[in-house]
Amino acid sequence: MEPIPVAILGATGAVGQRFVQLLDHHPWFKVTTLCASDRSVGKTYVEGCRWLLDSPMPEWARDMILQPTVLEAVNEPIVFSALPAEVAQDLEPALAEKGCVVCSNASAHRMDEDIPLLLPEVNAEHVELIHQQRQRRGWRGAIVTNPNCTSTGMTIVLKALDQVFGVKRAIAVSLQALSGAGYPGVASLDIVDNVIPFIRGEEEKVSLEPRKMLGTLKNGHIEYHPLTISAQTNRVAVLDGHMVCLNVECETRPSPEEAIQVLEAFALPDWLANLPSSPRPPIMVRRENDRPQPRLDRMIGRGMSTIVGRVRADEVLDLKMVVLSHNTIRGAAGASIYNAELIVQKGLLP
Amino acid sequence: MEPIPVAILGATGAVGQRFVQLLDHHPWFKVTTLCASDRSVGKTYVEGCRWLLDSPMPEWARDMILQPTVLEAVNEPIVFSALPAEVAQDLEPALAEKGCVVCSNASAHRMDEDIPLLLPEVNAEHVELIHQQRQRRGWRGAIVTNPNCTSTGMTIVLKALDQVFGVKRAIAVSLQALSGAGYPGVASLDIVDNVIPFIRGEEEKVSLEPRKMLGTLKNGHIEYHPLTISAQTNRVAVLDGHMVCLNVECETRPSPEEAIQVLEAFALPDWLANLPSSPRPPIMVRRENDRPQPRLDRMIGRGMSTIVGRVRADEVLDLKMVVLSHNTIRGAAGASIYNAELIVQKGLLP
Amino acid sequence: MEPIPVAILGATGAVGQRFVQLLDHHPWFKVTTLCASDRSVGKTYVEGCRWLLDSPMPEWARDMILQPTVLEAVNEPIVFSALPAEVAQDLEPALAEKGCVVCSNASAHRMDEDIPLLLPEVNAEHVELIHQQRQRRGWRGAIVTNPNCTSTGMTIVLKALDQVFGVKRAIAVSLQALSGAGYPGVASLDIVDNVIPFIRGEEEKVSLEPRKMLGTLKNGHIEYHPLTISAQTNRVAVLDGHMVCLNVECETRPSPEEAIQVLEAFALPDWLANLPSSPRPPIMVRRENDRPQPRLDRMIGRGMSTIVGRVRADEVLDLKMVVLSHNTIRGAAGASIYNAELIVQKGLLP
Amino acid sequence: MEPIPVAILGATGAVGQRFVQLLDHHPWFKVTTLCASDRSVGKTYVEGCRWLLDSPMPEWARDMILQPTVLEAVNEPIVFSALPAEVAQDLEPALAEKGCVVCSNASAHRMDEDIPLLLPEVNAEHVELIHQQRQRRGWRGAIVTNPNCTSTGMTIVLKALDQVFGVKRAIAVSLQALSGAGYPGVASLDIVDNVIPFIRGEEEKVSLEPRKMLGTLKNGHIEYHPLTISAQTNRVAVLDGHMVCLNVECETRPSPEEAIQVLEAFALPDWLANLPSSPRPPIMVRRENDRPQPRLDRMIGRGMSTIVGRVRADEVLDLKMVVLSHNTIRGAAGASIYNAELIVQKGLLP
Repeated sequence: MEPIPVAILGATGAVGQRFVQLLDHHPWFKVTTLCASDRSVGKTYVEGCRWLLDSPMPEWARDMILQPTVLEAVNEPIVFSALPAEVAQDLEPALAEKGCVVCSNASAHRMDEDIPLLLPEVNAEHVELIHQQRQRRGWRGAIVTNPNCTSTGMTIVLKALDQVFGVKRAIAVSLQALSGAGYPGVASLDIVDNVIPFIRGEEEKVSLEPRKMLGTLKNGHIEYHPLTISAQTNRVAVLDGHMVCLNVECETRPSPEEAIQVLEAFALPDWLANLPSSPRPPIMVRRENDRPQPRLDRMIGRGMSTIVGRVRADEVLDLKMVVLSHNTIRGAAGASIYNAELIVQKGLLP
Repeated sequence: MEPIPVAILGATGAVGQRFVQLLDHHPWFKVTTLCASDRSVGKTYVEGCRWLLDSPMPEWARDMILQPTVLEAVNEPIVFSALPAEVAQDLEPALAEKGCVVCSNASAHRMDEDIPLLLPEVNAEHVELIHQQRQRRGWRGAIVTNPNCTSTGMTIVLKALDQVFGVKRAIAVSLQALSGAGYPGVASLDIVDNVIPFIRGEEEKVSLEPRKMLGTLKNGHIEYHPLTISAQTNRVAVLDGHMVCLNVECETRPSPEEAIQVLEAFALPDWLANLPSSPRPPIMVRRENDRPQPRLDRMIGRGMSTIVGRVRADEVLDLKMVVLSHNTIRGAAGASIYNAELIVQKGLLP
Repeated sequence: MEPIPVAILGATGAVGQRFVQLLDHHPWFKVTTLCASDRSVGKTYVEGCRWLLDSPMPEWARDMILQPTVLEAVNEPIVFSALPAEVAQDLEPALAEKGCVVCSNASAHRMDEDIPLLLPEVNAEHVELIHQQRQRRGWRGAIVTNPNCTSTGMTIVLKALDQVFGVKRAIAVSLQALSGAGYPGVASLDIVDNVIPFIRGEEEKVSLEPRKMLGTLKNGHIEYHPLTISAQTNRVAVLDGHMVCLNVECETRPSPEEAIQVLEAFALPDWLANLPSSPRPPIMVRRENDRPQPRLDRMIGRGMSTIVGRVRADEVLDLKMVVLSHNTIRGAAGASIYNAELIVQKGLLP
Repeated sequence: MEPIPVAILGATGAVGQRFVQLLDHHPWFKVTTLCASDRSVGKTYVEGCRWLLDSPMPEWARDMILQPTVLEAVNEPIVFSALPAEVAQDLEPALAEKGCVVCSNASAHRMDEDIPLLLPEVNAEHVELIHQQRQRRGWRGAIVTNPNCTSTGMTIVLKALDQVFGVKRAIAVSLQALSGAGYPGVASLDIVDNVIPFIRGEEEKVSLEPRKMLGTLKNGHIEYHPLTISAQTNRVAVLDGHMVCLNVECETRPSPEEAIQVLEAFALPDWLANLPSSPRPPIMVRRENDRPQPRLDRMIGRGMSTIVGRVRADEVLDLKMVVLSHNTIRGAAGASIYNAELIVQKGLLP
């Protein structure tokens, strides 16, 4: 198979770097355009990017010239977007109109009615909204988005529980990694010997995005799941890996052991499980009493798995547990790439 | 007034050091005995103690000779105990029998029926259980305990809410400081770039201790508060200051603004408010959206105040908020000292 | 004595906040003007300042209105400057001309021939350069500067050694705190689980500034000390307190014990030792094998003392040792205040 | 080729875990015995080992039964030792006598006259001392040791410089990672917001071990290199990767550019360069002004390369630079494995 050319928007940022790293040696995709903000345009990637990852920058990326973040610079069938929401707002639809399939990590269009907020483990069928986009908006391409990095892991867990027990209410308290704020992001003086109990806009996303993802596609329209979610989001001194303490109430009041069985049995259909970025396993349940831990567990399944631990009875709701997900892999760049693979597999490229 | 001689048990540990620090220049108490474990006995305090606090060791303590942790070594009317539970189990009652009032931070006797688990802001009247102790057990002295450092701040908040709104259920997720584990405690390899979602025995304490403290003393007996508490406890890379994310359900479903008013109006009767270690204010409500933060707020009220922030409506229960309390001051050594002051004030020394 | 009004330039930054904190209850000075950058002008201090210190913002400062950083805004006889070098460049001389004595933490004028780079422990007599300034430049006021925060502690140690043994060469390797970079300063993603072996411009300052301070004032001119200094500066994950590993070669090849005696005997003349901000002691020598440590020792002498430890024979030069100094107190705001006290004491206010 | 069976002593500790990780899929070696201390004997590896690495424990290791650390338990031709020095003292010679080639990370026998302290990049020819051991001591097997993790990187750099410029004196100031102290090792309360300027026994090793490695093998005897080294060792809050600030004096006073050329040209003979664990490259010179950094650079060459940066003129000696080496890979487990490969290649197995 001929590799499919892809572009990366916002290529020099924290998520953009993850795109570059994860697309190195990708079996289907080949990066042909890197776009960056004005002050880096015209530089090589190695000059314009403060590389923050602990594996070396891929050789092929080092000398690529950074392009401007404009419609004309991008002609690839697939575009990965790590743009700030305000830049994504207009550019992503313009690219979709032009014929690109934009797999976006930006929040700008996540809640648009005809744009899927897609996690293959949860709602692969929502990708069909692409047909609505094309019909209504006259686009040749499309936009698909992935959720906020804190919603990702917990929504996968809620999905597994919901399809057996029916989830009604959840309380989520997060302990989020520094990379979620991008670079330079959180000042070191704010986080050494400290915790910040606030992340702007995050609790609203965590309360709402899972309801769209867990929703039902009917007649080209998504009915949100009626689940109620309360969120409290905190920043802690961890480099990568968002942890969520989750309390869940279900229709059928499962025991912890029943929940563990359901989580461990959670599997993907073959066509999804065989995609290159598919998590193996989708959910891993740890039985030790002190896991998951971000530093030790975030790279399970090459950063794509969702790790659950401490599943136990909750005195107030039904179940409590701890969920861990790699925020810049499963929660950002890896999510967009996995979505792109799903689209290719479904034959939805224009 | 002649200073009252006091002894400190477990004087070289993390909490023991706080006792020494907080009793420096105390207006009522004078430390006359420091007890330590066998390997330090006979050394001076400066030799036997790896001092971990960032203010210098008080001059008077440096050359005090460490005594064995035995009944014979202690003859003071007030004894502060920072003993491990298994040592406290037998020694504290023996001291009480001998005539000492033991103000203990150990967990060994917290749940004993006739032993008060005392927070002056919450249940000063429970100190009357001392009469039960003396009557039933024939003690001349007494034991009073203070709660687990994670329960402390949240119980004070729950008390303020309960007396106006009636609290029914609460979910507490903690982000706890390293000093709560003592020294050497948490290994650095376990906590740099990491979070540990488990603290042995802690969730059980956080679920139960507040119910005793919020309980009602009737006929010399405490009826536990019927409140249900669910706890998830986490260790984070913070030196001092336990933070708790709290969701609360109340009988009367207060609005956040009503809750803030009640928390800010929470005041102590004069006789309590004027004790040397009394928190000023007992509760401080922060209105900024990113407070409280451990490093910035733990020393409010010289480490004795309870700091509350982000009080807002909860989608699942009624209210959510963030509570901060200094774990080795308000949550440990300062708590025992404040309890001792209350006992002196009440004339309950033998 | 009537308090002397003082202004603070750059009042909202990391060093500006230390000025506000250290001038709270100062026996001689009263802050009457706070200047800040354009985006904060007109706000109150509590609104315009992201307060980063762990003691509360002083009450008197909270409601002061932030003034623009312009000549007209400042009329105090003493001005404390925490300005960036490029702003200080022109404004500080203009203020000196207008009649203000500017005690500056900025680097802009440190190396000017007629401007003292002043550490009272080291070169109090250099303050006489003020007369040169007034004569040559026609200023009514003056500028005095304090050195870079890394040079401070090591220069005090080198002074003590130099006056007895004659220092010839030194190698300094620093482990510097985050607050030295201001706020937001170092990104957390750059320093968690990491060290940065480079601080822009720092090594040049550390090599040169001590030579001016240790120099001799002759005929209104400073002859630099011929000492050679090699510096390597590193940033580490410490909030406050710069540590320097120092190797020193002396004319008379002292033994470590001789050096310790000289360091411990280092004393200030009474008129300096009695100034409000004078370090007590000026130098503290720790004999433990693992001290000084930033977190435990930076606040000795209220952050104004220089702490030395591990004084021992050096296999290559003569002596090696570890020096610690609080970078935003002794190395910045406290330094400027101490200099101002010296000027008042000397009767050098206009 | 049939895989060679190997045993690991001290398999559950921090270095022992690295042995297990690095030997996973090793092309020549197969782990057949894991030994541990008494309290773990009889458990499976997964039960007896608190795994601290961020890649999963290899499947083959999980169910291996931990053996006692005794002579009888070990029958492999190659034994990797991560024992404490006091246990290694007697057991390693007994194993060598029995016929095992012990590749040891322990310090017990490093300085023994007939035991090579071996870094293939530096002194591969010292492996010939094995013949002395066999002759003098009647051993069928042998002991070869690798140096202290702080000496490793700097000795490789000194070797490259020495063979062209002749090194005379060096001053080394280290910033060492937490994993160098093993587990539990450094208490978190000692290192959060702190630096510890002391590591027991380390400075002595850093001063002496490089002189043996850089020494000359003549007539079955090693003449130590006359180089003088002064060391100051510090512990910082970094998980892995020891950084050393190095000042060097050479016979021929090279310029920094000459030094960089020599470091970059440093190459190994083919037979060494082709060993499975050989560093590729042996030395990497970074030209950026802020590298190497532990988190970003420690895994270069799969943790086996030595990274050098900031090579510049030194005002006191001739050159200064920063050296980084992964302390538990190149500085410990990887070093022993690389030594074992050299021994196999040389045909020195019994």
